[in-house]
Amino acid sequence: VQQVARDANRLFALSLAAEGTATIGGNLATNAGGVSVLRYGMARDQCLGLEVVTADGDVWDGLRGLRKDNTGYDLRDLFIGSEGTLGIITAAVLRLHPLPTARTVALVAVAGPRQAMELFAIARSTSSATLTAFELLNATSVEMVVHSHDGFRLPFANPVTPPWTVLFELSDGSAAIEAILQQGVDAGLIIDATIARSESDAQRFWMIRESISDAQAAAGPTIKHDISVPVSRVAAFIDDAEQAVRRAHPDVRFVVFGHAGDGNIHENFSPIAGGDHDVFRGKLDDLNRIVHDVVRTHHGSISAEHGLGVLRRDEADRYRSPVERTLMRVIKTALDPNGILNPHKVLPDSR
Amino acid sequence: VQQVARDANRLFALSLAAEGTATIGGNLATNAGGVSVLRYGMARDQCLGLEVVTADGDVWDGLRGLRKDNTGYDLRDLFIGSEGTLGIITAAVLRLHPLPTARTVALVAVAGPRQAMELFAIARSTSSATLTAFELLNATSVEMVVHSHDGFRLPFANPVTPPWTVLFELSDGSAAIEAILQQGVDAGLIIDATIARSESDAQRFWMIRESISDAQAAAGPTIKHDISVPVSRVAAFIDDAEQAVRRAHPDVRFVVFGHAGDGNIHENFSPIAGGDHDVFRGKLDDLNRIVHDVVRTHHGSISAEHGLGVLRRDEADRYRSPVERTLMRVIKTALDPNGILNPHKVLPDSR
Repeated sequence: VQQVARDANRLFALSLAAEGTATIGGNLATNAGGVSVLRYGMARDQCLGLEVVTADGDVWDGLRGLRKDNTGYDLRDLFIGSEGTLGIITAAVLRLHPLPTARTVALVAVAGPRQAMELFAIARSTSSATLTAFELLNATSVEMVVHSHDGFRLPFANPVTPPWTVLFELSDGSAAIEAILQQGVDAGLIIDATIARSESDAQRFWMIRESISDAQAAAGPTIKHDISVPVSRVAAFIDDAEQAVRRAHPDVRFVVFGHAGDGNIHENFSPIAGGDHDVFRGKLDDLNRIVHDVVRTHHGSISAEHGLGVLRRDEADRYRSPVERTLMRVIKTALDPNGILNPHKVLPDSR
Repeated sequence: VQQVARDANRLFALSLAAEGTATIGGNLATNAGGVSVLRYGMARDQCLGLEVVTADGDVWDGLRGLRKDNTGYDLRDLFIGSEGTLGIITAAVLRLHPLPTARTVALVAVAGPRQAMELFAIARSTSSATLTAFELLNATSVEMVVHSHDGFRLPFANPVTPPWTVLFELSDGSAAIEAILQQGVDAGLIIDATIARSESDAQRFWMIRESISDAQAAAGPTIKHDISVPVSRVAAFIDDAEQAVRRAHPDVRFVVFGHAGDGNIHENFSPIAGGDHDVFRGKLDDLNRIVHDVVRTHHGSISAEHGLGVLRRDEADRYRSPVERTLMRVIKTALDPNGILNPHKVLPDSR
């Protein structure tokens, strides 16, 4: 879809690390996010209309190409993100944007999440219209990528991996990004910074971010979280989660990265070097509970962009209020009374 | 809300002519649109979380401040735009944006909707990130405003009101707007154009757009429509609607204006000078049918940003497919089995 859009001089704005294998149906069913949400929104925002097969076998033709339509309940947004449990999406009208005329990417070394989020505030107020992505990566996640790519060198003066790295992109010339970095330097937020001087530089910077999942998988078993908190609480969440996990499990490696500008952090874990893999795997339930309880104290979500499926189904239900549980159950029963649509997903089986 | 946001150096991006009397509850219940949808989206897009009282009298606490949350069905978007028929919105978390650092407004005289929409395509591809509004006004709507404001003069060289007028705004300096206008002149799309040289100029330009409803009301009875079509069909819709209406009713005045950049046109009518008001009022059903049938041929919506209430309820139902009718009815029955929430609105009473 991205390629067809580009050939027509347009942008399909959904962009995620898994885009080589992901499908549009899956993206819509799970309301996928990705690296351009900051400017363009999630999968839901890239969709104007749907065709859906209902539990009765009827076809709902909602294939509209309209920016504005207030003629009843928002069926489209109800089906999007329902993971096939309310109806099966069989076609979609996608929204395209003009191709940005430029892009500039910066890689910035910072001391911690607090400095990163202060830099984000500067970037937002300086260039809100063209700020496309603002990603945060801890040292371990960057090192895993560096180690899995022979001869790769970070473009910073100091060869030691910085404590935290920010990657951000503007659909704009380099003057705007220089202004942001200058303000960041003046405010004492930046250890080092590099601006991509070519498209291949930009791709190399992005490769770091997009290779983390594979690099982590190559380093052994993984325990992953896809959480969000209000943007104002990202730094506090990362600190609190680190403290809570370290207290209970000093023997795990933190692989923390994500779409910090959206409040969406992948708080992941790997075994320490030489650590026993089975012991590590045994921490799954406990790490889930610790991380998600910290999310709860920051009024966040335990599934920001990956959906629930079966894996997060029961946990999501545990954090749900009784009223919300009832509302979702009532909608499921109304649209799929016999429970034939993607059974056992999203909501626990009714008792 | 706008004022409180501005005091905190932020923008609440919902902006509509009725904003002096409209309420946030009403804006969310109807998913209101307005003049900034092009860049910021509708009321739905300005809301991160809701508190809703359900038909059972329970309170759903969905007051989240999250950009991303995929932990179940999209209850928020289902309640927004349901006009109180699925639940009563009692509180909301609103989304704010950074205040734009600049705004530039242009008023442009063009020969017709086709030229206006070609200018829109230029503006979108030149400045998509900062294009905030793109409004189109026919000569009658502009003249009604000029006549109701003593001494008001359009800022064009030729004192005669142009056939059509475009008002557009960028959150950007004037260089970008000059580049757009230069391309429009080169392409032969522009009769005349003026850029606001001060904030008071900008407000005067916007006053024309925002005074149309009052000026039309002062000119006698009105018959109004709030339609949308795909943006690529705006010019064809305006032409087709004019032909279809003129054929059946040569004795009405066309007051055509709206958010052309969103595909949303207010296709309104007033009596001709000296025309009988009761005869005009008698055309209501026929004009509704003619205009909405043209909307249908262009795959549009008969309610773009104003909702249905009782006025458009039965018409909307007539254009709905049986499958869509069933889906909406099933959702209404599931969430309000006794029909106590804003009865008789949005959906026809069940038979």
